[in-house]
Amino acid sequence: MQSDPTLRLRVFDLNCWAIRYLSKRRQERIRLIGDMLHREDFDLVLLQEVWSEQDYSDLKVKLGGCYPFSHYFRSGVIGSGLCVFSRFPILDTLLYQYSLNGYPYMLQHGDWFCGKSVGLVIIMISGIIFNIYVTHLHAEYCREKDAYLPHRLVQAWELAQFIRHTSKAADVVLLGGDLNMHPEDVGIRLLRGWTGLRDAFAEATHFEGCEDGCTLVPSNCFTDKSELLPFPLGIRIDYILYKAISSFMVKCEELKTTTGAAPGMDIPFSDHEAVMATLHIQRQAQAAGTTLGTAEPMLADVVTEAQTEVGVGLRAAQQQRYSSGRMAMLALLLLLLQATAALGALVGLDAGQPFPKLSFCLLGFLAIGILLLATGLHLFHTMEVKMLHSTEEQMRMVLWALQERP
Amino acid sequence: MQSDPTLRLRVFDLNCWAIRYLSKRRQERIRLIGDMLHREDFDLVLLQEVWSEQDYSDLKVKLGGCYPFSHYFRSGVIGSGLCVFSRFPILDTLLYQYSLNGYPYMLQHGDWFCGKSVGLVIIMISGIIFNIYVTHLHAEYCREKDAYLPHRLVQAWELAQFIRHTSKAADVVLLGGDLNMHPEDVGIRLLRGWTGLRDAFAEATHFEGCEDGCTLVPSNCFTDKSELLPFPLGIRIDYILYKAISSFMVKCEELKTTTGAAPGMDIPFSDHEAVMATLHIQRQAQAAGTTLGTAEPMLADVVTEAQTEVGVGLRAAQQQRYSSGRMAMLALLLLLLQATAALGALVGLDAGQPFPKLSFCLLGFLAIGILLLATGLHLFHTMEVKMLHSTEEQMRMVLWALQERP
Repeated sequence: MQSDPTLRLRVFDLNCWAIRYLSKRRQERIRLIGDMLHREDFDLVLLQEVWSEQDYSDLKVKLGGCYPFSHYFRSGVIGSGLCVFSRFPILDTLLYQYSLNGYPYMLQHGDWFCGKSVGLVIIMISGIIFNIYVTHLHAEYCREKDAYLPHRLVQAWELAQFIRHTSKAADVVLLGGDLNMHPEDVGIRLLRGWTGLRDAFAEATHFEGCEDGCTLVPSNCFTDKSELLPFPLGIRIDYILYKAISSFMVKCEELKTTTGAAPGMDIPFSDHEAVMATLHIQRQAQAAGTTLGTAEPMLADVVTEAQTEVGVGLRAAQQQRYSSGRMAMLALLLLLLQATAALGALVGLDAGQPFPKLSFCLLGFLAIGILLLATGLHLFHTMEVKMLHSTEEQMRMVLWALQERP
Repeated sequence: MQSDPTLRLRVFDLNCWAIRYLSKRRQERIRLIGDMLHREDFDLVLLQEVWSEQDYSDLKVKLGGCYPFSHYFRSGVIGSGLCVFSRFPILDTLLYQYSLNGYPYMLQHGDWFCGKSVGLVIIMISGIIFNIYVTHLHAEYCREKDAYLPHRLVQAWELAQFIRHTSKAADVVLLGGDLNMHPEDVGIRLLRGWTGLRDAFAEATHFEGCEDGCTLVPSNCFTDKSELLPFPLGIRIDYILYKAISSFMVKCEELKTTTGAAPGMDIPFSDHEAVMATLHIQRQAQAAGTTLGTAEPMLADVVTEAQTEVGVGLRAAQQQRYSSGRMAMLALLLLLLQATAALGALVGLDAGQPFPKLSFCLLGFLAIGILLLATGLHLFHTMEVKMLHSTEEQMRMVLWALQERP
């Protein structure tokens, strides 16, 4: 077994920023991405934000020769935007939609409508089973006051749990995607600690690309410079993570990022830089075992930190549930009062000056509108409370297990 | 290894029908269920429709002595209603919420609000890893014209996929729950065929209980007799299914159902009958392998049948998406017309008789109401189309793989 040759796997990951009608020079960039993927001939391509099925189909047609296998993950209203192209047959797929993903009423952010998810494709190369995960977590719109942190943490937790539960028969686990978290953020420490995944950037023998491996850089003409002001080098939020289970060993030989404009072109492929890893996979004599990624006392600290943040989100959600419920009750009360008054007027009890009909109707409609809206909000925040509560409890259970372990 | 003693596992499954304010004599029945579980001392208890967390907490307190480990799965607005009590430590849990689950506007059915899911708990007994799944699929309200069949099939498919992907390291897989499908229905054939799970009722050496293993019977005082008219014996929709992976063998020694009123009481535990299985698990010399449950040509037929039904659902959803989209456009058009007319009146272009203000306002509000409602419906049906399409495609992929296999 030890004499098995090393398997070399070239992986490409990119958040393509391909939102119909909104992303600049989308079709041109999708063409450029397709050309480059065709030219470079990777083994595995993990894409995010391919939100138009037409773009996916175009890529599929163009790449059919070199990447004969592909999968597009559908979810939400707009779609998950996730897809995979592979040189090797895709044996099986599974999609897990995160239980929390922002708010439907935050139309300007729109994450809710994408049904953010993690997609799994299983491929086998030379008898080695690869579980390949591709994902995109909720965006961070304001780092100082990040209202979506609890949701992103729930997503990071669900991502870790999904990987742990579905990868037990895999030899190699690979995760690529836009995690919308900086390398030192609690969510990524949680994900890495709880799954044992290793960061290709940190492990790479050779690195080439944007400084510090950043994937959102000010030099990219599509990025919002004002958002990157506190980070003059840019930020690293796109990752390739991996680990080997059972008796395999994975090493990242080389990691590259694109650096702004595509070669010979005036525009980059996307507002994100692509991440490209060359991995070496080898069978090893001794089974690696399923170790966690972080020493257990440290993992307990990370889980505690994440649990605290989820708890903060839980209390905020409970407050919103309460406020929307109260608003719905007040609107209902107003409607009942109006109904009583209208009935009174009808049966002639109130013989005085009748209400001005127009104002009365307007008020009634307003009350109905508020009642419907507040009820909808109340239902939504009830679900949010349930999922935050559930995640907090799961984390508590894990902490208990970590502490109980001899 | 072959000399390992047989492990005997007693499993209890019940849809508890414990909906706050709606289910008859709920608290009394929950007490009865608790008393019986305490007395009978099963190894594993799988419950559905425990929709009040207070009921779960009450059971937890009462059963703490004999079932020290338990888990309640939260999801949706009301909750999944799923919970598990166990004599053995629960090592890990995971919840998967089905992507389709009826319609939020079908308030009289209410399934959408429960966030129907499958819950997984992992336990280890004498070194044997058990993956225990508990679930509750969408109800069937009208068998002749079952509008929810495509959704239930998507759920059955997702359930099968979830089990397949998460159980690869398990020695024994066990599924209990109210599947809302008759034994010969396509959904249950799909689930069994695609996972290899075996039906405890069909496999049991000894059976005791309602005829044909029915779990919804006319003799139960809480069932709706008119619904059971075409089935004088009742129907069997609650199941315990199992399989062994790797080198284990599971046999169902005994299967029992309750038969109406609880012993010494005037009422049954629920409107469903409970299912109780005694399983024997033994290590065997030869690995069983991961066989599918149905011969492959037959499985292909089942998947084709399911795919056809999902296709029917897809076309219906596309039609509804189109209708709601058109309705939203019409409402928007009406609003624009009104806005133009109002502007015209304001700037004095229309010097004639002004519109009656009240009717004008009422019409405006009506248009806004319809616009909002139709937009909401359109978004919902867009998601529905996405998920039905995705399931249909996955089934097509499986069919292709089944046909390709030598």
